[in-house]
Amino acid sequence: MDWNVDRIPEAVIRRLPKYYRYLRDCERNGEARVSSAKMSKDMGLNASQIRRDLNCFGGFGQQGYGYSVPRLKSEIARILGLHKQYNMIIIGAGNMGHALMRYTSFTSLGFRIVGVFDNNPDRVGADAAGYEVRNIDTLEEFVSQNNVTIAAICTPSSAAQSIANRLVRLQVKGIWNFAPCEVRVEPGVFVENVQLNDSLYVLCYRINAPEHEQF
Amino acid sequence: MDWNVDRIPEAVIRRLPKYYRYLRDCERNGEARVSSAKMSKDMGLNASQIRRDLNCFGGFGQQGYGYSVPRLKSEIARILGLHKQYNMIIIGAGNMGHALMRYTSFTSLGFRIVGVFDNNPDRVGADAAGYEVRNIDTLEEFVSQNNVTIAAICTPSSAAQSIANRLVRLQVKGIWNFAPCEVRVEPGVFVENVQLNDSLYVLCYRINAPEHEQF
Repeated sequence: MDWNVDRIPEAVIRRLPKYYRYLRDCERNGEARVSSAKMSKDMGLNASQIRRDLNCFGGFGQQGYGYSVPRLKSEIARILGLHKQYNMIIIGAGNMGHALMRYTSFTSLGFRIVGVFDNNPDRVGADAAGYEVRNIDTLEEFVSQNNVTIAAICTPSSAAQSIANRLVRLQVKGIWNFAPCEVRVEPGVFVENVQLNDSLYVLCYRINAPEHEQF
Repeated sequence: MDWNVDRIPEAVIRRLPKYYRYLRDCERNGEARVSSAKMSKDMGLNASQIRRDLNCFGGFGQQGYGYSVPRLKSEIARILGLHKQYNMIIIGAGNMGHALMRYTSFTSLGFRIVGVFDNNPDRVGADAAGYEVRNIDTLEEFVSQNNVTIAAICTPSSAAQSIANRLVRLQVKGIWNFAPCEVRVEPGVFVENVQLNDSLYVLCYRINAPEHEQF
């Protein structure tokens, strides 16, 4: 991989999934190539920003031709690490946990749910969207035997940090946290704190922004 | 409100909810004031960036004193529009819809769920987390009578755009879309397409990034 910068800006990293989804849709529509001008129009991003972003990882475009959709899509997939398989577990078999289990658009990629855990005796042993709910007490044993890379925390806030600490000790590399609080981890472990409220607040901002702010 | 720029950069808008949550936690911990240096350390953001961000809306800080926590929190709440009340409806009473209904951290703010809708006869009329599920056919009548500002779409992808179109016609100002597809709206209506996968992809990127990229 030929990256042109030492450190990819956070804002660029955050845009990569959008590029990936866009190119996947282009591919589904049978489009073989796409210009940065068209991407700009469709995605609502500045064309020069798109070119700059994609240049961070080595330029994939060709003057007057645009980008090859399959090539750019697979390069971005590789940059994001989507060409690999990941074993994932879900902690908490409540509504959010169920929503993730049924969210097939990621299970159809390289993410494989290998275990679901809960501490509620009414849930343990039951079937959740086709998965057996395991006792959280068996987490350590399970993770040590199943090459788990990613754990989604779907517990209440009160349990989230202590679960994260257990996952860190188990050397689970990635924590996808849906509890409405931020969990903190040791260096070498990565966390995405999904704060559903944040997008609601941004929506409120837009609804209330002065006219000249609207876009 | 005294805004220092004509147009607030998107990245700043996206950081406002984080400032808001941080200051709310400070307030809960009884902290009366906070420096940009401490915010920087706690939030993992550059201190000069924090000062620049907050300057966009008029400087709230005072040299050598820092920011007043309650004042800055209430200013940011006002900028985000969180000082107002919003009637919200939820379309789709599946797992994601239920997760939102039970996500009390936003209902404790100014967001009030006034209606829940579905098109599934097995769900319509049933109780969902304390809300009666209404027939989607009654959407138009309900919205015209209940001053609905925000609608959360929790349907499958296949239904999301047509529901969004109905909401636009009903002049619902904000659409919070959880279907795994982007919906498009007319100018004057605002949409936040919550793509759960995007944060998973970013997590993958971090897990796979070369050592010098890790932070």
